[in-house]
Amino acid sequence: MRVMNFSAGPAGLPLPVLERAKEELLDYAGTGMSIMEQSHRGKMYERVHNEALEAIRRILHIPDDYAVLFLQGGASMQFSQVPLNFLSKGNIAYYIVNGTWGEKARDEARIVATREDTFAIELASTLEASTYTRAVDWKSLTVPSNAAYVHFTSNETVHGIQYAVRAGEALPTFGGTPVICDMSSDMMSRPIDVTKFDFIYAGAQKNLGPSGVLIAVAKRSFLASGTKSLPKFLQYRTHDDSASLYNTPPTFAIYLVRHVLSWIEEQGGLTAVDATNRTKAQFIYDAIAAQPEVFHCPVAKNSRSLMNVVFRLPTQADEERFIKEAQGHHMVGLKGHRSVGGIRVSLYNAVSTSDAKALAEFMGAFRL
Amino acid sequence: MRVMNFSAGPAGLPLPVLERAKEELLDYAGTGMSIMEQSHRGKMYERVHNEALEAIRRILHIPDDYAVLFLQGGASMQFSQVPLNFLSKGNIAYYIVNGTWGEKARDEARIVATREDTFAIELASTLEASTYTRAVDWKSLTVPSNAAYVHFTSNETVHGIQYAVRAGEALPTFGGTPVICDMSSDMMSRPIDVTKFDFIYAGAQKNLGPSGVLIAVAKRSFLASGTKSLPKFLQYRTHDDSASLYNTPPTFAIYLVRHVLSWIEEQGGLTAVDATNRTKAQFIYDAIAAQPEVFHCPVAKNSRSLMNVVFRLPTQADEERFIKEAQGHHMVGLKGHRSVGGIRVSLYNAVSTSDAKALAEFMGAFRL
Repeated sequence: MRVMNFSAGPAGLPLPVLERAKEELLDYAGTGMSIMEQSHRGKMYERVHNEALEAIRRILHIPDDYAVLFLQGGASMQFSQVPLNFLSKGNIAYYIVNGTWGEKARDEARIVATREDTFAIELASTLEASTYTRAVDWKSLTVPSNAAYVHFTSNETVHGIQYAVRAGEALPTFGGTPVICDMSSDMMSRPIDVTKFDFIYAGAQKNLGPSGVLIAVAKRSFLASGTKSLPKFLQYRTHDDSASLYNTPPTFAIYLVRHVLSWIEEQGGLTAVDATNRTKAQFIYDAIAAQPEVFHCPVAKNSRSLMNVVFRLPTQADEERFIKEAQGHHMVGLKGHRSVGGIRVSLYNAVSTSDAKALAEFMGAFRL
Repeated sequence: MRVMNFSAGPAGLPLPVLERAKEELLDYAGTGMSIMEQSHRGKMYERVHNEALEAIRRILHIPDDYAVLFLQGGASMQFSQVPLNFLSKGNIAYYIVNGTWGEKARDEARIVATREDTFAIELASTLEASTYTRAVDWKSLTVPSNAAYVHFTSNETVHGIQYAVRAGEALPTFGGTPVICDMSSDMMSRPIDVTKFDFIYAGAQKNLGPSGVLIAVAKRSFLASGTKSLPKFLQYRTHDDSASLYNTPPTFAIYLVRHVLSWIEEQGGLTAVDATNRTKAQFIYDAIAAQPEVFHCPVAKNSRSLMNVVFRLPTQADEERFIKEAQGHHMVGLKGHRSVGGIRVSLYNAVSTSDAKALAEFMGAFRL
């Protein structure tokens, strides 16, 4: 039997996607080969590749002046590649830090800045610094006019903090300053207006597919502004110019992403997916609120993530028992990130409403 | 039915590997999840990851003072990452170029050199430059004493040129100068002495697995000599320090690599695999020699690749007919690289002796 998978990523995939992949594994579309055994220059793979790119455009309503790219190395690679491309002498980069991932992105940019001697990194973070409990109030920030870009992480998986949690609330914008967003853990979980961004990137392994492929959506005029003095492979334009076929892409991962995108469209697109995700998160936050003597969510209400619900129990022993008993009910992946402990419930797209409801019911019955 | 797959990569995988992956796709080892749905910090995935690393060490007899790394971005990423890490002011890089891939590696290094203003790149290549027909005689080269490293490509897939083709022949070495080798298309196809190298890298999609993961084998003291001014993610030491779990690795690709490595060991290891590969190549080269009026291999005999056999027919129309008729016999992937045309027969590990024999027989029966 399949377990209820609340892992923070790599995360569960929709069962119909896995079933289809299984069926096609030895023989894709009558070719007598697996899709992963086919040349990335061949017609069969190119069709899969292009269908995936087109589905991303369709689902996110991406206009033609934006590029959609498949890249490798995950968000961690982007933490380097972004400043290498877009930081230039005399400019600064402005990083908003709401947790672990924002810190990592900022730290790599700082290394690039140091290397070039003339950059400066400014940053904003919560007053609580290392104990992130709310998202920075971006409306109160003043971004210097020489900022090459503002970078933020839309959802912090470790601390369970997300921007624009209330329905209809906008993600940060800063007038004319380019905005770069690490959307690894909530891209394709809700509708977004991509035209508000200059560069969005997201590893696939939360809401979109397996690990090993990253999706970037970027304004082409912004890509064109990137430095040309980097090795070609590190310049984004190289990948846009070749429709992400400059070198061999992670073909099987992209094939799975295509199937996940079809599944998203079958669900009714991002409006429907968003509604489901809100319902799921509400189940868990309600279960926390129902037993304040047992569960405590440290995150401020207006920053509570719809993707990763974090909470504590009174003692570590209670938390261990919670995790163990949940496992007895076939619920896995509930352990908090090793850097913070506690419980983390990840509710990415592939987690069903019934799984979230079952966990909420288990929480409701849990006693100290 | 499964076809006979002579693709240049992504290439065929051993059927038992795919069958096992299919069987385990919805439920890996009784976990109720696919391996690709499991946390990369979880016990089940970590076991797979470590088994893959250990199998690479065992099969290639890698000593403890060498690191084994899983990286992303393929060889193209290494073309950038190698010079970024190992070129430093006052040093030069020495690139031996035997074809398309050596050119690409050199061109990226040249960009790094230009960027830093003070580097120079020297290179050697065949006199025929763009019409590579033999491997550079490396024994005749004099590498300057300020060379940070010598880089070469052990097998050129587009031009069908390989080093150390004769059994027992050594791969290039240059006294005390560090040697870096792009072994993407022949790693794990034959035994090698890794202690002769300072850094070896290979994309998995030829002999080792699907695309999306790269294996690097590197002397730790050489890694330690790399610059520390790069973003952490681009420094190799970061990945060695964390056993290639610094960030989320391409877990499913590594899982498949582990299965392929088991298959290699079941074949009897690299000595047995090498013998089989030589037999397969001999079938095709013999078929070329048997009909000199039909087939012509442009590569000098002592450089003819065991992995990619390239040949021409008198006219392009003949070549097209050859490819079409072969397809009628369920033989696919025979078209030469778009930059050079002609026929290319790729004979990576997963191609069976009987498939190579069948193709040789088809060639024997082919008439103009």
